[in-house]
Amino acid sequence: MTEAHLARVRIVLVRPSHPGNIGAAARALKTMGLARLVVVAPRVTDFRAAADALALATHGADVLAAAAAVPTLADALHGTVASYAMTGYAREFGAPLVDLRSAVATAAATLAQADGDVAFVFGTERDGLDNDEVAQCSRCCAIPAVAGADSLNLAQAVQVAAYELRLAFAGGAIAPALQPFAADPPASHEALEGLYRHVEEALVALGYHDPATPKRLMARLRRLGARAGLTMVEVDILRGIAAAAIAPRATRIGRKQGE
Amino acid sequence: MTEAHLARVRIVLVRPSHPGNIGAAARALKTMGLARLVVVAPRVTDFRAAADALALATHGADVLAAAAAVPTLADALHGTVASYAMTGYAREFGAPLVDLRSAVATAAATLAQADGDVAFVFGTERDGLDNDEVAQCSRCCAIPAVAGADSLNLAQAVQVAAYELRLAFAGGAIAPALQPFAADPPASHEALEGLYRHVEEALVALGYHDPATPKRLMARLRRLGARAGLTMVEVDILRGIAAAAIAPRATRIGRKQGE
Repeated sequence: MTEAHLARVRIVLVRPSHPGNIGAAARALKTMGLARLVVVAPRVTDFRAAADALALATHGADVLAAAAAVPTLADALHGTVASYAMTGYAREFGAPLVDLRSAVATAAATLAQADGDVAFVFGTERDGLDNDEVAQCSRCCAIPAVAGADSLNLAQAVQVAAYELRLAFAGGAIAPALQPFAADPPASHEALEGLYRHVEEALVALGYHDPATPKRLMARLRRLGARAGLTMVEVDILRGIAAAAIAPRATRIGRKQGE
Repeated sequence: MTEAHLARVRIVLVRPSHPGNIGAAARALKTMGLARLVVVAPRVTDFRAAADALALATHGADVLAAAAAVPTLADALHGTVASYAMTGYAREFGAPLVDLRSAVATAAATLAQADGDVAFVFGTERDGLDNDEVAQCSRCCAIPAVAGADSLNLAQAVQVAAYELRLAFAGGAIAPALQPFAADPPASHEALEGLYRHVEEALVALGYHDPATPKRLMARLRRLGARAGLTMVEVDILRGIAAAAIAPRATRIGRKQGE
């Protein structure tokens, strides 16, 4: 799924009662890189100017302002090649039910193969979609939840769907922006080997480690070091500690006093 | 991850300003089978009785009523073996950053291997967690989002985390409750073969299909049938249509008139 594919995803809210939920949905779209919000027959027609909507949209204010309002679900689905009716349970005569993660995977494939848009369709806060609305969609889609408590808040359901769409877009990978500590790169192999030699020397100096009967001590410390994912700066710090441990006790005390 | 593991997950809200968000978080937990909400130093101490909290908790009212309130984050983390500071970006001196899905996978392994609880820790609505709070957690965890618009609404972020925890609990599989149409089981192999024979006969009767030059027609119809995942009742319906197509035209008209 590419950025262009994500731009062809519509989030459709059918007959929402509360402008606040439309605003919160706009924020949810914004956080996940979606931009196309379609509102069908909202109770408050001037929802874009409602105080609640604006307050909850926060940095999604542009998504809220650009939201389309249409009179019917058929209008909202015009131009789509797949539409997912968000519904918590199987309806006897609805389309086949899939879970959200599977639906998003299928939607990604559809967007890659076909022109046209894909819609995820959410019903009212109180009752969800009615049977006629479900029947207009090509699939039913459920967010897996606990039976008997499976009604999610509208904006929270939109957030979960937008999140899955974003992850599908990112290929499940952590975005580059999440790679931490660019200024402190991971320790090189050589740096780690130097550290382990230095630490072993320090442990001998401290009388903790006997190289003649080493047991598994250094192997355990290496495993710990590997798991920690040490950085270059951290290696320097640990080598400083090792050097301090090796120095004669008098020197160490003198150093500390000199601080 | 088992039900017992899920019961050892704490969702911690640090210094939340709005009781409504605590209520909405309680609902999010409830939908995903989580029960342990811990609130650190809330602005409104009597949040459990606040009208906003009750209104937004809906069927999570029991989770809201059972929420623990503690004065410090240290109290909230007492008894945990792993804690994830929810933060949208890497902090220079914070714990290693992982994405939510990876964090949940690791948390599931931790719950299986160790006694003690696992906590997911959320900061304030406006500013998230401060550096001191982040430092008390064993990992930083981010919900992958768009750079520059990565601030999720508090209750929406809790919903996404609870959803990932639920999916890890369910092993990514669709819960049995989502298996549709228990009263109408999938068509058996024999039923499908009987249907395809019947349909072919009907297509010949209609003059649409010539078994002498069959091309790929039946193969295409079989592929369509397989993709549709036909049920026993649907096979009966399609065979009824085939039978009607095979019957002499006069009989068909007569039948229709007799309806």
